[in-house]
Amino acid sequence: MKPYKKIDENDLKNIAEFVSRDRILWKDEVNEEYSHDELSAGQYYPDIVVKAVSTEEISKLLKYANTNNIPVTPRGAGTGLVGAAVAVEQGIMLDTTLMNHFLELDDQNLTLTVEPGVLLMELADYVEKKGYLYAPDPGEKSATIGGNISTNAGGMRAVKFGVTRDFVRGLEVVLADGTVMTLGGKTVKDSSGYDLKDMVIGSEGTLAVITKAILKLLPLPKKNVSLLVPFPTLAQAIGAVPPIIKSKAVPTAIEFMEREVIMDAEEYLGRKFPDNQADAYLLLKFDGNTMEEIASYYDKVAQICLDEGAIDLLIADTDERAEAIWKARGAFLEAIKSSTTMMDEVDVVVPRSLVNTFVEYIHELQNEMGIRIKCFGHAGDGNLHAYILKDELSDEQWQKVLNMTMEKLYTKARALKGNVSGEHGIGYAKKAYLKESMNSKAVDLMQGIKKVFDPQNILNPHKVCQD
Amino acid sequence: MKPYKKIDENDLKNIAEFVSRDRILWKDEVNEEYSHDELSAGQYYPDIVVKAVSTEEISKLLKYANTNNIPVTPRGAGTGLVGAAVAVEQGIMLDTTLMNHFLELDDQNLTLTVEPGVLLMELADYVEKKGYLYAPDPGEKSATIGGNISTNAGGMRAVKFGVTRDFVRGLEVVLADGTVMTLGGKTVKDSSGYDLKDMVIGSEGTLAVITKAILKLLPLPKKNVSLLVPFPTLAQAIGAVPPIIKSKAVPTAIEFMEREVIMDAEEYLGRKFPDNQADAYLLLKFDGNTMEEIASYYDKVAQICLDEGAIDLLIADTDERAEAIWKARGAFLEAIKSSTTMMDEVDVVVPRSLVNTFVEYIHELQNEMGIRIKCFGHAGDGNLHAYILKDELSDEQWQKVLNMTMEKLYTKARALKGNVSGEHGIGYAKKAYLKESMNSKAVDLMQGIKKVFDPQNILNPHKVCQD
Repeated sequence: MKPYKKIDENDLKNIAEFVSRDRILWKDEVNEEYSHDELSAGQYYPDIVVKAVSTEEISKLLKYANTNNIPVTPRGAGTGLVGAAVAVEQGIMLDTTLMNHFLELDDQNLTLTVEPGVLLMELADYVEKKGYLYAPDPGEKSATIGGNISTNAGGMRAVKFGVTRDFVRGLEVVLADGTVMTLGGKTVKDSSGYDLKDMVIGSEGTLAVITKAILKLLPLPKKNVSLLVPFPTLAQAIGAVPPIIKSKAVPTAIEFMEREVIMDAEEYLGRKFPDNQADAYLLLKFDGNTMEEIASYYDKVAQICLDEGAIDLLIADTDERAEAIWKARGAFLEAIKSSTTMMDEVDVVVPRSLVNTFVEYIHELQNEMGIRIKCFGHAGDGNLHAYILKDELSDEQWQKVLNMTMEKLYTKARALKGNVSGEHGIGYAKKAYLKESMNSKAVDLMQGIKKVFDPQNILNPHKVCQD
Repeated sequence: MKPYKKIDENDLKNIAEFVSRDRILWKDEVNEEYSHDELSAGQYYPDIVVKAVSTEEISKLLKYANTNNIPVTPRGAGTGLVGAAVAVEQGIMLDTTLMNHFLELDDQNLTLTVEPGVLLMELADYVEKKGYLYAPDPGEKSATIGGNISTNAGGMRAVKFGVTRDFVRGLEVVLADGTVMTLGGKTVKDSSGYDLKDMVIGSEGTLAVITKAILKLLPLPKKNVSLLVPFPTLAQAIGAVPPIIKSKAVPTAIEFMEREVIMDAEEYLGRKFPDNQADAYLLLKFDGNTMEEIASYYDKVAQICLDEGAIDLLIADTDERAEAIWKARGAFLEAIKSSTTMMDEVDVVVPRSLVNTFVEYIHELQNEMGIRIKCFGHAGDGNLHAYILKDELSDEQWQKVLNMTMEKLYTKARALKGNVSGEHGIGYAKKAYLKESMNSKAVDLMQGIKKVFDPQNILNPHKVCQD
């Protein structure tokens, strides 16, 4: 691969011919926030940040970059955890946050068409006011929908509804050479050739830049009930999940949490959680159109929880009460982050019947490695978030212990037939672990596909499957 | 591309070293059924048919074919309509119907693991007896699940539940060079690199051979009600669908049908349909766990139908009554086929709000072209099946009229932002129309991906995106 062209004043001039200069940041104008994401250790400054406002601008920009061999890193709100939106080869950072318009809510086809910079919280609010649900529910509400699609974000409601991929009907994308292309559309079914749309979803900006998305909406369920269930031990809490699934009840979400993390959240939010006496909790949500329908599920689930050793059952049937609980849940990542000096995470997903096995292993590993690992996550879909904390370790000790811990956690996930990432993606930080977890031929296929989409390798280099 | 090696006695000998000779059909042993699918006009006999019983055999067979440059056409039950399972380059036909075992029903992860040769009707029956639903519901129940996955089959319940793709959690596949690979698994979420699983789904045997599938199950809804609604005109029937969708009711299925097709079905089945007095009908299905839940939907829908001009409402709330109606619906394809000398089909999908526009166009086209076109289909998801009938035309007239009619129908679908195929796939028959409908760069991407998976081009050549 020939080295990338370094951006100079002349490139700035050329780019400013199709992007207004006040939407370009150049050298010293590039703020610190563009040098990292939510969890990066290092800092990489792009040479130039372009805040695009249209598909046409992005098409011209990519064509220019492709012709001139300049790397481009697409970026939404920068809330990622794996370095996918960090410009490791510098070059151009393509900021899509100004493309934040709602284009169409089509109530006959139940679709919402948006630009990629719309924030998840804005989107949820917009459709709920009109009586619809955008079902994916990732914890980070200030992420952009473009970022969510790029990592195939999951979230809490995956138990019942699925992940971002399941709610993307169509995409407008720009390829590396500037070609604008529509993949899928408003149609419900599609068996028309290879599935390019799903190839772009979850590709973390390495195959194409998303400039528009047609999302599938559901009618907003009229009623919902949350259930907070304290258990004497985490093993008992998580152990209740397989029988719940087996009972054929259909919860929307099943989260698990430990007291320690709840206390972090209380401190971080300055607000009490409804209960913090038990060692562990399950938090469940049910929704439907009638209370009878919901009750038919949660009565059964409540009984199972009691059979599995639950201490109590706290029903949150008012919006305020439910909101307080879910808000605390939403703050876990930030709360843990503020409880230590530095941290890194694993986001593995295992078959939901094996969550306990994995969590037990995390507990053993804490002792073995002499570090704190806090975890919480999606018991209902097998996706765990484990945070490895640096605390008072020296930088050198930390790197050593972190690498060993990561290695062990991923080895364990592999042994349980799990995957490296349930929802955060691979980015830069987890490339090595992805590679280890896959058949080498699968890596070859991914690298081959990358070359087909982006032969010059200008789109987000060194990410996902690339060295 | 160098020409394929022609299979000879020596190849037969070599293949018989790893596949028992009694599961190999050679030359005259190859039955007529292997020379076409459900709707092929021509006949192409493979040189050899191999009825595999294991992943290992398929791996060895593909390795042998890849090394010796012999084309391989994977085939399930041969119920396709677009020639995907026809051996247009002869060579090896890989029949997977003997791989028809249920491997595991995992009630803690709600997955069913099967071999590809399991028939859809066997699968539905197997899981329903255990209280689960495999939600995709294509009309052709004697298709294999491997074939369903290969075309991303849709079916009638797509309105509520989605298509085959949405219910495949994991696949075991064999690549062209014989590599065995697992894509996805039992996990609910996955953001671990490019989505190879969805690339194989719907690729019609051109990228890999499916040897195992892990399917997602749902708890079987406890109750269901079907509603047959006669309308004075088809336009009124289909016109009721957008308001139904807009009302936020959630039907499981919404089918439309005309009297003419119903009468074909009555003749074909030798059994009366519950009603054949009206020109057109909507057939809806609702399911849920309580009759209250279902009633909350269908009361609303019934009122909308009446507002839109429905003549009557026939509720089928017993299993027998419902079965009679759906059985007739399931026989439409065969019934139409038996009403003419020869036919071909289009399977376009358009946004569901535009079904009426497309159906009106079909009616105009009948007059314009002087032929009969019968249609029925999935009003709820925009997927229409239109059958162009040869009747008494000469072969020459037929080819001419058929090509012109097809061309016009696809042009119209494109204008409505629809896709060439909603659920039947592209295969051999619809390649030209797919190509016309797509950005040329999208065709390049698909052809590039084909080369990455199958550099020797031995897997099902000349299908989907290949010339």
